[in-house]
Amino acid sequence: MTERTRRGHDAPSERTRVRRLGERGAYDAATVHAILDAGMLAHVAYVIDGAPYVTPTAHWREGDHVYWHGSSASRMLRSLEGGVAACIAVSHLDGLVLARSAFHHSMNYRSVMAFGLAEKVEDPAAKQAALRAFTERLVPGRWDTLRPVTAQELKATSVMRMKLDEASAKVRTGMNSDDADDIAWPVWAGVLPLRTVAGPAEPDAHVPAGMAPPPLPRT
Amino acid sequence: MTERTRRGHDAPSERTRVRRLGERGAYDAATVHAILDAGMLAHVAYVIDGAPYVTPTAHWREGDHVYWHGSSASRMLRSLEGGVAACIAVSHLDGLVLARSAFHHSMNYRSVMAFGLAEKVEDPAAKQAALRAFTERLVPGRWDTLRPVTAQELKATSVMRMKLDEASAKVRTGMNSDDADDIAWPVWAGVLPLRTVAGPAEPDAHVPAGMAPPPLPRT
Repeated sequence: MTERTRRGHDAPSERTRVRRLGERGAYDAATVHAILDAGMLAHVAYVIDGAPYVTPTAHWREGDHVYWHGSSASRMLRSLEGGVAACIAVSHLDGLVLARSAFHHSMNYRSVMAFGLAEKVEDPAAKQAALRAFTERLVPGRWDTLRPVTAQELKATSVMRMKLDEASAKVRTGMNSDDADDIAWPVWAGVLPLRTVAGPAEPDAHVPAGMAPPPLPRT
Repeated sequence: MTERTRRGHDAPSERTRVRRLGERGAYDAATVHAILDAGMLAHVAYVIDGAPYVTPTAHWREGDHVYWHGSSASRMLRSLEGGVAACIAVSHLDGLVLARSAFHHSMNYRSVMAFGLAEKVEDPAAKQAALRAFTERLVPGRWDTLRPVTAQELKATSVMRMKLDEASAKVRTGMNSDDADDIAWPVWAGVLPLRTVAGPAEPDAHVPAGMAPPPLPRT
């Protein structure tokens, strides 16, 4: 995605255009990046022998690429290594929207869907830099405190990335929207917000007494 | 999925078998159902013109089917209406697992991946029963308190379902697992738990003073 702001009908490609409830769609990099950066779990879809597969995976973003990683032996990564078509979604469920009719029940959410060719990061230095960015994104400052990565470990880890050329965001916020005739219907209506919280940190058996845990991730 | 317990190598199909870290896999209905029932947001993957698509959607389960719904006009539902191949994933991120080496960092999670043919629920009575189950699952007792659904609303809503014949669960719990040589490395290691919390309820402007909100969803 270029830094040029894309809004409304100005989708980067036809398949990227948000069709349903198009007013909820956005195509600008700031919106797309913020939704990607607020999440730690993506779902990556791909095609094997004509059949759809979707796999949850940790993701992160650097510039205009989204990254994910895993074992070099995984089925998903093997199938994507050739630079094959992928679709990645990152979704946050922010609340249940309760209306006075079943039909107007909804959810508040932020989601990104991106299409592209997934490519393997082959260069060991680039791969290590990407894994560093992943670690730092979860716990800032952690990489340099770790036992250094070995060449063998680096080899056993695949890093994939996809350029955010065809990405769209879809967001719903705010209250329920009832039909005018339903407003007096005697049932509670509104939003039940949902959010992710972290902590408390659970040290393993080998952490010395008094060693502070890292800051909790912002969620 | 039959009620017969399937564990370890006894996967319902070859593509369903958990390949990576197979000890984390499970195929029994109780495990699969519990993970599906603990979530409110699924990712459904499908293939259009050979390309992968993945879409977030609210889901629910009744017996050995997983259901989802949306507008009859949506691209995803139109593409699935013919009874086409789909793959659905429901994933919970339960914690960040911090080890003393980058390589052993991990995540605690519960996930289900299911393959099958998505079919449209056409019968209006069956469709209404399914939407009732969806509403009741989010807020028990709510359906009968709502303004009744109209025939037009029912027509405008598509309900899809897929039989859980080919489903697998993958779960990681517990602490980090460091190499023996790394245990004394002087960095904090352990788990940063993550969980979803609900509330406080936000009534809309038309809720009478003193009307209690529904119970918050269990998350």
